[in-house]
Amino acid sequence: MKRLSTFLAPLLVIAPITADGGELLGFYPSSREAQLAAEAVLQETPAPEKARRWLARLTEEPHVAGTAQEKKVADYVRERLVEMGLETEVVSYDVFLNYPKSVSARLIEPEEEELSLREDFIDSDKDSAARGMFPAFHGYAASGRAGGQVVYVNYGTPADFEQLDKMGISPEGHIVLARYGKVFRGLKVREAEKRGAVGVLIYSDPADDGYMRGDVYPDGPMRPPSAIQRGSVQYLSVQPGDPSTPGYPALAGAKRLSRAEMENVPRIPSLPLSYGEAEKILRRLGGPGAPDGWQGGLPFAYHVGPGGAAVELEVEMEEGLRPIYNVFARIPGREDPDQLVILGNHRDAWTHGAVDPNSGTAAWLETARGLAAAIEAGWQPRRTILLASWDAEEYGLVGSVEWGEDRAADLAANAVAYVNLDSAVTGPDLGVSGTPSLLELVRTTAGDVSEPMKGGSLLDAWEKRLATNWAEKEPIDLAAPEAAFEPRLAALGSGSDYTVFLDHLGVPSVSFGFSGPYGVYHSVYDNFRWMEKFGDPQFVYHAAAARFLGLLAMRLAGSEVVPFRFSPYASALERELDELERSVIRKNRMAALENKEVVTIDLAPVREALVAFGAAGERLDGAIDRAVEGQAAGGVEDLNRALIQIERAFLSSDGLPARPWFRHLLYAPGLTTGYGAWPFPELAEAVERRDQQLADRGVERLTGVLTEATRRIEAAAALAAD
Amino acid sequence: MKRLSTFLAPLLVIAPITADGGELLGFYPSSREAQLAAEAVLQETPAPEKARRWLARLTEEPHVAGTAQEKKVADYVRERLVEMGLETEVVSYDVFLNYPKSVSARLIEPEEEELSLREDFIDSDKDSAARGMFPAFHGYAASGRAGGQVVYVNYGTPADFEQLDKMGISPEGHIVLARYGKVFRGLKVREAEKRGAVGVLIYSDPADDGYMRGDVYPDGPMRPPSAIQRGSVQYLSVQPGDPSTPGYPALAGAKRLSRAEMENVPRIPSLPLSYGEAEKILRRLGGPGAPDGWQGGLPFAYHVGPGGAAVELEVEMEEGLRPIYNVFARIPGREDPDQLVILGNHRDAWTHGAVDPNSGTAAWLETARGLAAAIEAGWQPRRTILLASWDAEEYGLVGSVEWGEDRAADLAANAVAYVNLDSAVTGPDLGVSGTPSLLELVRTTAGDVSEPMKGGSLLDAWEKRLATNWAEKEPIDLAAPEAAFEPRLAALGSGSDYTVFLDHLGVPSVSFGFSGPYGVYHSVYDNFRWMEKFGDPQFVYHAAAARFLGLLAMRLAGSEVVPFRFSPYASALERELDELERSVIRKNRMAALENKEVVTIDLAPVREALVAFGAAGERLDGAIDRAVEGQAAGGVEDLNRALIQIERAFLSSDGLPARPWFRHLLYAPGLTTGYGAWPFPELAEAVERRDQQLADRGVERLTGVLTEATRRIEAAAALAAD
Repeated sequence: MKRLSTFLAPLLVIAPITADGGELLGFYPSSREAQLAAEAVLQETPAPEKARRWLARLTEEPHVAGTAQEKKVADYVRERLVEMGLETEVVSYDVFLNYPKSVSARLIEPEEEELSLREDFIDSDKDSAARGMFPAFHGYAASGRAGGQVVYVNYGTPADFEQLDKMGISPEGHIVLARYGKVFRGLKVREAEKRGAVGVLIYSDPADDGYMRGDVYPDGPMRPPSAIQRGSVQYLSVQPGDPSTPGYPALAGAKRLSRAEMENVPRIPSLPLSYGEAEKILRRLGGPGAPDGWQGGLPFAYHVGPGGAAVELEVEMEEGLRPIYNVFARIPGREDPDQLVILGNHRDAWTHGAVDPNSGTAAWLETARGLAAAIEAGWQPRRTILLASWDAEEYGLVGSVEWGEDRAADLAANAVAYVNLDSAVTGPDLGVSGTPSLLELVRTTAGDVSEPMKGGSLLDAWEKRLATNWAEKEPIDLAAPEAAFEPRLAALGSGSDYTVFLDHLGVPSVSFGFSGPYGVYHSVYDNFRWMEKFGDPQFVYHAAAARFLGLLAMRLAGSEVVPFRFSPYASALERELDELERSVIRKNRMAALENKEVVTIDLAPVREALVAFGAAGERLDGAIDRAVEGQAAGGVEDLNRALIQIERAFLSSDGLPARPWFRHLLYAPGLTTGYGAWPFPELAEAVERRDQQLADRGVERLTGVLTEATRRIEAAAALAAD
Repeated sequence: MKRLSTFLAPLLVIAPITADGGELLGFYPSSREAQLAAEAVLQETPAPEKARRWLARLTEEPHVAGTAQEKKVADYVRERLVEMGLETEVVSYDVFLNYPKSVSARLIEPEEEELSLREDFIDSDKDSAARGMFPAFHGYAASGRAGGQVVYVNYGTPADFEQLDKMGISPEGHIVLARYGKVFRGLKVREAEKRGAVGVLIYSDPADDGYMRGDVYPDGPMRPPSAIQRGSVQYLSVQPGDPSTPGYPALAGAKRLSRAEMENVPRIPSLPLSYGEAEKILRRLGGPGAPDGWQGGLPFAYHVGPGGAAVELEVEMEEGLRPIYNVFARIPGREDPDQLVILGNHRDAWTHGAVDPNSGTAAWLETARGLAAAIEAGWQPRRTILLASWDAEEYGLVGSVEWGEDRAADLAANAVAYVNLDSAVTGPDLGVSGTPSLLELVRTTAGDVSEPMKGGSLLDAWEKRLATNWAEKEPIDLAAPEAAFEPRLAALGSGSDYTVFLDHLGVPSVSFGFSGPYGVYHSVYDNFRWMEKFGDPQFVYHAAAARFLGLLAMRLAGSEVVPFRFSPYASALERELDELERSVIRKNRMAALENKEVVTIDLAPVREALVAFGAAGERLDGAIDRAVEGQAAGGVEDLNRALIQIERAFLSSDGLPARPWFRHLLYAPGLTTGYGAWPFPELAEAVERRDQQLADRGVERLTGVLTEATRRIEAAAALAAD
């Protein structure tokens, strides 16, 4: 069988990128024909026209979680699944949500001027009228009234606040103005609050997703001056889910925290802003000029303040418990019905959500239709496939987290894999993030799905882009110039519904989407017209997403042996360790120059454990290949159970420092990034905090889980060899 | 003695940056006291108030080369030198220059609008009235009238034109609009002309030196909307100097090429433009959106064209021979009067030239005054010091090149070193470029000059900045993480008067200046008021530059043994070879992906020759140390002559491919960069052109000159040991 080493090529001779499809990982030779026949039915089903129609209906109205409109969309989705002949279930929770009762932002110095929290109506786009929509607000923002001089803090990262500190400027008592980008918005508010700011405005700078990136809507796909990015300001990397039930399900009778007791929501008010409005503040701001990297795309030199502009925010929230609806379709497995392959997509949106998330919902519905067609044609999976339509993701992954906490024991025992689709389509470029044990499944499956516009397979296009990126950016070690491209899944951080599965429960996960220029995120212009004009005018990428999702499910749920490969896992961890090591060296070089303490991380034990992990992985992969080819007469039930439990070895019962809900020791959202992943989160945090003790403990715990995983792999290999 | 290895430190323990002054390289112990006493006189002389007065007088009027105003400034400089009691000489050449008789740029589609070639008058700045100034134009631009649709080409580099090609857009028959930056402006015109453009506009984008970099003049030091960058469009990297006498001096009776015969000037017309005017074109441009990296700082999405905007240029030039004046002061050496240490600065300016070049002239005059004071106090150098005030640098290094060609034989035999000062001050940050054999002289000398604002020495501040830059950016080899900071002189490219000395004659050269935010380059706002308000309000950096320049001269001209060190040379070349190797690997990775040919450079012979060169250098440095400490009874005349000839070993009689005037095989301006240096220029060109034959020949020739230099070093070491 093809292995990763195919891609190891000598210096300057890069192996030609070849499609690697037609390979059914984990399927016995005798099952392959039937599987391919069933897959053909699935592949033929998704239709661009259908996806277009689903999307038009799903995005008729804004549908914020907990509202009547969102309930209508939940019903609509369920009805479609029922129509397809699938078994459905709705699981509802009452969760803590907020809506704006009254919000305003006002320039009060040098002159009084109301700042708009509504987008401009565009004649050619009826949806931009945004009937029935809330004014722009932040999910989980605190109520309050705050006024003061404005301080501009760039992206509002810890490094940005440190830079401010070096300039002798404190945000204390001021209104912080941060631009969107780099890190999850809630963590900007968290940093500002920690430093004594009284309120926060977060705006979209044209340098990040506006005219500096391309033409703006309606002439192009990027953000126009009045467009506002709504979104949650939960402290996502500390604790996602319903803030009133942290770490446990929001079931009837569950203990509910009061807002004052919640630890993952802000105490100071915040609002989002368009760059058209933010310009009115920024243009007037005095104080020192923007340091390197702080200038945005508005046409004047930015200043940091304070001085020149004062602002007043008033945020009055309606807060309380609201019902949310996770909608499921269940395709029961024949041989191993307890084992679960979960395909999830959220449904709630800040606005119409044509991209986020309903491009995913449209594709997901087409996957459901494809699976239903395969069933109709006589196919049935070995394992159970669960199609999940999550609610209240936008507030903080609430639907998936509550359900994951609710079903934790079952999932820990039986969940095989979680496949996520959020914003499925903004353009043609496939991106895939995931657990490295799923790399080979992703590659072989992407090799069997056609790229709709370029010819060849999704794999061809995906690997070509990855290889180009590698060639352009991969650091060059002169001591090892023969390094060659290896495809990798991006590491999963957070910001979508895989979080509870991977980080809390240790379920191998993958998340994918097709991307392109997209500047209208969380604005009223993220609507059907935008998608038709810019994102996917022919809806062919929606159909491709449906095929890819469906095929992944059919293979994960259909193979005799669960289709994990562990040798790519070791290789991915090695590369991520290289990156960590480079960042440690870099930070320590800087720290030494500034006479700051440095952190020494002795990676030798980790590297040693990784070598053993990699060797065991190769043995297991080989043993599985032989078992599959030999159609393992003795059965593979024990082997599969063992395979499912390998990823769980990376969980630690006490979790990460000060965020025990995050239990995976290899991957977590960055504590200070939110979206962005921190591989080896304890080590990353030790470096960021310059905490030698944490570094030492991190190495120990990391070595521990790698050793335990190696043990489980060895045990699985023994079962495979039986 | 302190050596480079002082700076080799283990991983994470960077040697503290320590001042390394008080060391008189090449001075006999018995001479040091007298030298230090004379140096004290020099150091005490330069006065900020004097520099301020010189600058005010030098910049009273715009003084373009060949004009009556520039003749007045030449006379003024000579009179000051005479006043100081120095022996002066004026060497005049008649050279080919051009002035604008009539120039205009006009938008002709979608509507007619004249584009201004004059800057706005600013009330608070009398010089901005620019009385007696030419409208903005390009030195050596061709006369002609051209009209057509505009195509935006980003910086107009070869890579930018290749990108355009990939997009299926040809500049043929169009007006090319390029932004300033990255490469020398003449090479933008050269690339456009090669590709069939009919005319070129080059504008200053606010992303490069306008409001995106800070507040604009008169509120800040950066470029305001109406400011225009004048400048030469000579093909500087092919052949500098008077285009009518390429490679030979412009003496009376010399053969003169007609304009049609000149090979280093454009055939198509070009004009410079402000961003205020360029916006009128760019905002209307149709065609595809700007690719990655092409968006500038104007507040809309850039498009490439053609379509949407057409422009007409009319350029009528007055061309002909004009007199230029190089003004010299000569301080004759006592022991070795033939041996020359040259301190050069140009005097001509596109406008008032308060930064470029007369901050250098003011400092240089203070150096002259300091040297005169030392002479007055009884000091006389061993070798002759020649202070050179060059003319017509702005057109293409014309004054220095013609003189260098005129005196080539003498300089080849006797020139010890050339020290250059161009724009000496735009702020506080010292930058030094130069031949690596001068690194130790630069370091020890900078260690003896006080940093005027921060305390400590110039060396402290300079090395701290270099170390920070190294820590932030130096690539990290995981296989060699113990790499430590080593200070280096930046490689000399071109764009100032060291070019003929280093690249044509093989004279070790150094060029330095103090820099800060500076956006008014070659505009009418580069005037005294800008300097007083932003560049050096107290003129203390002018005085520091004068001290540093004077001390370098006194040490180069006063030491018994010429103060070169060769072990840093090998180390610098190794780092530059590493950089080249990284760039080859990077380009080849990209080329392989695109199925393009790759170039294989076998650096092993070069690395081997470098090892021998480095070992010989260490032996020579040691032998010199011993000779100096032992006060070499037998005299050092032969040793000094041998030392002077070592750098000449890097010259090749037939020069670089298609630009034979450039004879140095280690350093040249990039053929396609102009300003930026290409270390190992043949190899760099081979990589850029993907020319395997040139690569092979380059390795051979490079190995050859390194071997010859090693032989000369060995011979010098033998003389030192005698």
